[in-house]
Amino acid sequence: MSQTQFSVGQKHQRARRIGPEDVRAFADLADDHNPVHLDPAFAAKTRFGRPVAHGMLTGSLFSGILGMEFPGPGTVYLSQTLRFLAPVFVGDEVTVSVELVELLPKGRARFLTQARCGERLVLEGEAEVLLPRLT
Amino acid sequence: MSQTQFSVGQKHQRARRIGPEDVRAFADLADDHNPVHLDPAFAAKTRFGRPVAHGMLTGSLFSGILGMEFPGPGTVYLSQTLRFLAPVFVGDEVTVSVELVELLPKGRARFLTQARCGERLVLEGEAEVLLPRLT
Repeated sequence: MSQTQFSVGQKHQRARRIGPEDVRAFADLADDHNPVHLDPAFAAKTRFGRPVAHGMLTGSLFSGILGMEFPGPGTVYLSQTLRFLAPVFVGDEVTVSVELVELLPKGRARFLTQARCGERLVLEGEAEVLLPRLT
Repeated sequence: MSQTQFSVGQKHQRARRIGPEDVRAFADLADDHNPVHLDPAFAAKTRFGRPVAHGMLTGSLFSGILGMEFPGPGTVYLSQTLRFLAPVFVGDEVTVSVELVELLPKGRARFLTQARCGERLVLEGEAEVLLPRLT
């Protein structure tokens, strides 16, 4: 068993538009039909002014990039922290990135996980995973 | 503005079955089509033995209970930590709970967030939120 293909500083990112159909699907999955996500008239009266995506929907994109791209298939998710810094509006394109910041004992690693809309940092946290075995 | 309806020790919970249709929908949303979640034949050869739900899908249920039930509409999600302790198998019923553990300055509060399958604790973490204004 070897993890020599992984090293500190490696970074992957990808972009995804979060559309109203995504927000509706997530609302059903999370049982979260808060009108701030779904009802433009309601959202207009809130601090946000227009519908915002669920923070955990943006956070879920980290699951995808970690599990499918980097470190990729075989990764086991151990933990994730999420700080919701700014709203993601419905229709926004979000760029999520994961950067390997520390190799840990027993095949684990720590990643900085960030989401941006343009230059604006909207979500930041850290993930710890069990790396896939590169045998 | 008053938050006197909220006090430390208050706890809410709810249960939800996570079916294969939920896992497929989440896989599309998170761009995470890892076969450990979707392909029984593949999952049978992994440490899990059968398909497991995405950890972030279970974590997303915290968004729903916080935003819709307790503290309920008007809640603003500030942060969430998640430790994935044990697998949730596709078809399992998950009970998620949120307990107010600390009232913080400026209308914020900290919650213990847990998910269980039967007696088994599968996911644990903490959420910090801005409480809804109870005016």
